[in-house]
Amino acid sequence: MADAKERKILVAVDEGLESMYALSWSLHNLISQTSNDTIILIYAKPPRTVYTSPDGYLFSPDMLASIDKCRNDLASSIIEKAKKMCREQGDNEVKVEVIIETGDPRDVICQAADKIHADVLVMGSHGYGLIKRAFLGSVSNHCAQNVKCPVLIVKKPKSSSSATGTK
Amino acid sequence: MADAKERKILVAVDEGLESMYALSWSLHNLISQTSNDTIILIYAKPPRTVYTSPDGYLFSPDMLASIDKCRNDLASSIIEKAKKMCREQGDNEVKVEVIIETGDPRDVICQAADKIHADVLVMGSHGYGLIKRAFLGSVSNHCAQNVKCPVLIVKKPKSSSSATGTK
Repeated sequence: MADAKERKILVAVDEGLESMYALSWSLHNLISQTSNDTIILIYAKPPRTVYTSPDGYLFSPDMLASIDKCRNDLASSIIEKAKKMCREQGDNEVKVEVIIETGDPRDVICQAADKIHADVLVMGSHGYGLIKRAFLGSVSNHCAQNVKCPVLIVKKPKSSSSATGTK
Repeated sequence: MADAKERKILVAVDEGLESMYALSWSLHNLISQTSNDTIILIYAKPPRTVYTSPDGYLFSPDMLASIDKCRNDLASSIIEKAKKMCREQGDNEVKVEVIIETGDPRDVICQAADKIHADVLVMGSHGYGLIKRAFLGSVSNHCAQNVKCPVLIVKKPKSSSSATGTK
């Protein structure tokens, strides 16, 4: 392995266990103790839906602010969980950076991968939750077709109850 | 990286440069000098088309034998090229095994990945040549959806003229 190379390993995380398993797999299988890699966690925050009714906004500004807060708390919670996993399962020296962007995860992830010149993009096979996937199609399929760098698609084994990345 | 683990890295090779680039990428980015990994090269030999005409076989047995020989020579040539790459670019200790099966590459690769309990499947994004892809669809997409293990899909950069795996 070309340990001297500083690689940028972009890992897409979301609220699903599968993305955490993908992160764990990367920490166990891509990161070497002697490497000089940076894990870049990316989270695509879904755009706020502006709920309207015929006579104006359906929700009060307070309610919208509350919804925004929930979305931000969810993003923070996911990123903290991922960072903790990097500290506990990765080599001590692994650097971690974070990208949080609002938008369709397909666009957010593909644009970031190209922009930062990622060496590899890692993601769960679903990539963005059960409900959204039904509407958006597979995020991982889209990214595999559209980003320039190698894409590692990790599935969580059905028999595994924890995101250890080992079998 | 869990260096002590003996991983089986299944790499699908074909006549395209992209699969050789995927192999090269794996040698540079997945294999550690202290790991105990086995690279398993898999080549899916397309089934022989039995050419027939209304009054019997279109080709003589000699001609069919000659076609078979060409297909076997192509398979040998691809595998030898891949083995040479493993020797030259990989760590000296990397073990190499070979699987050659006849059939639709989608079935051959997915079945082998599950049968040998591969730790990761590596393939080019096209996976089986330009012409066949038009009929079969993307082999890599199919495999990403159907195999149980993580799938690494590697694209050959457009600017790269050699399969070095480095940028």
